[in-house]
Amino acid sequence: MHTVRELQTFFIDYLSQNSFIRDPQELYDPVNYILGLGGKRLRPVMLLMACNLFKDEVKAALPAAFAVEIFHNFSLLHDDIMDEAPLRRGQPTVHKKYDVNSGILSGDVMLIYAYDYLMKLEDQANIGDLIKLFNQTAIEVCEGQQLDMNFETRDSVQIEEYLRMISLKTAALLAGAMKMGAIIGGASKEDAQCVFDFGWNVGIAFQLQDDILDTYGDPEKFGKKVGGDIVQNKKTYLVLRALELADDATAKELSQLMMTPTVDEIKKIETVRGLFDRLQVRQEAEQLKESYLDRAFAAFDAINVTDFRRQNLASLANDLMGREV
Amino acid sequence: MHTVRELQTFFIDYLSQNSFIRDPQELYDPVNYILGLGGKRLRPVMLLMACNLFKDEVKAALPAAFAVEIFHNFSLLHDDIMDEAPLRRGQPTVHKKYDVNSGILSGDVMLIYAYDYLMKLEDQANIGDLIKLFNQTAIEVCEGQQLDMNFETRDSVQIEEYLRMISLKTAALLAGAMKMGAIIGGASKEDAQCVFDFGWNVGIAFQLQDDILDTYGDPEKFGKKVGGDIVQNKKTYLVLRALELADDATAKELSQLMMTPTVDEIKKIETVRGLFDRLQVRQEAEQLKESYLDRAFAAFDAINVTDFRRQNLASLANDLMGREV
Repeated sequence: MHTVRELQTFFIDYLSQNSFIRDPQELYDPVNYILGLGGKRLRPVMLLMACNLFKDEVKAALPAAFAVEIFHNFSLLHDDIMDEAPLRRGQPTVHKKYDVNSGILSGDVMLIYAYDYLMKLEDQANIGDLIKLFNQTAIEVCEGQQLDMNFETRDSVQIEEYLRMISLKTAALLAGAMKMGAIIGGASKEDAQCVFDFGWNVGIAFQLQDDILDTYGDPEKFGKKVGGDIVQNKKTYLVLRALELADDATAKELSQLMMTPTVDEIKKIETVRGLFDRLQVRQEAEQLKESYLDRAFAAFDAINVTDFRRQNLASLANDLMGREV
Repeated sequence: MHTVRELQTFFIDYLSQNSFIRDPQELYDPVNYILGLGGKRLRPVMLLMACNLFKDEVKAALPAAFAVEIFHNFSLLHDDIMDEAPLRRGQPTVHKKYDVNSGILSGDVMLIYAYDYLMKLEDQANIGDLIKLFNQTAIEVCEGQQLDMNFETRDSVQIEEYLRMISLKTAALLAGAMKMGAIIGGASKEDAQCVFDFGWNVGIAFQLQDDILDTYGDPEKFGKKVGGDIVQNKKTYLVLRALELADDATAKELSQLMMTPTVDEIKKIETVRGLFDRLQVRQEAEQLKESYLDRAFAAFDAINVTDFRRQNLASLANDLMGREV
């Protein structure tokens, strides 16, 4: 069994040995740039952990872990263009550092390289299942991004629709990556499905937690600027639930606030947070997050492996969710 | 043996039965739009013809033919965004009809669906080879597009570099598609390679012919506006060869013309064409095209099939190249 730290090291080593040294440089420089921006490498590490549930030797899964990380960064790259985001992990986004055309084309080639790395897996016995799963996952991520863009211009979004959007945009890739790891590890169909369900529900919980932390997080610990979602008028769970719970006058006030470009950031954050507090939507979000975590751990408990095997993944998940165990 | 017309009909039927009826509509409408714009469907038909060289029944290859057409249209869609092209086949481009973000994301999902359709092939025995070939092809197309963009801002481009660019951007996909067809048809490794070499060299010849027709074509027959490359200052074979052959003064005149935004289109086309005529670059381009066609047919002749089997593909290729046989 490998610790999270060990798996991270395996992955970082593999990544640094697989930088794109190929012509034309203008195509591959942005690829190396975004892959080198760092991050927790959560998806590839979770893939390796899922593999490690069933198999001691996980290095054979590294090409798939890299494929998932390439895909994730491709989607960040193109999303940043669509959102006109200037920064990613505190550094200029690809389209800012290079240009939009480089961003589009380098993203495209990354998507192809994700498949290229899947084909580098030594054991190709399950390649059909892996590619089908990867296709489904990738399609869902695109659909989630489209829904997210749709919601920006829509007047009202139902909470059910929001949960579907974050499922596709965030949970699908975590679930898909973990199921790929399980398949490579030799899991039974049933176990692989449990791993998928675990990843899916953890993914939703993770996004709900991100919504909460964006408004209520400790500025020292939270990577992004606290209150950013409010400033950008994002329709997060907190906003949508507040609109459901509020009386007509309050709902109107909140709607108008969230439709107006932000002038005074500090004041707007304070006002909206005050409103959230009155309606106790933070508590509701925490409860909903916990209910997804419960579902996640129910699926986890159904995986047919020893407690010894499951301990690393369980503690990583609890760790990610800020849970004491 | 199926005629070109029959194969086109098979393909068009398959395409119309496989339109993307899926949510979110905003993601899939642009996909159906660009796939419905028509065109000769050259790549899928050539894939089916390559399959038909080795096998009577070609319908099993339709998912691969569709994958190639989806990929081709994905690359047109993203290229049109990068080139800021307003029209495609006489209709508004996707980013004009919808918007740039829709164009990026719908293109992305098309690329994934190309792989999805490869996985729909009934016979999955060769799927590893097919996906690896498809990956290599798709990477080359991106690299070709990057080189093409690089050349736009470069002062000088060597003819060898230009030929490499059109090989990647145009020939690779035709060659890759045809080799896929051959593999699905059950060709031997050697025959599949000959089919690939045929497609590669026909592809280069085809692009050289396009360069010639863009300047010298019959406006009635040529689909695009004759003289368009000159107006857009494109570094085609004609320009690059003229720069090589011209004396210093003429080369300087041509260089300056091709670096200045076009004001008087008719006058510029006349001037540049006059210059080409004096240097006889059209004849050189024709010769070069013929030399690639010779290479193509040498590879074609090496394919181990009966003359009866090869006749349709040979006549299509000659037809495309405006050759009498």
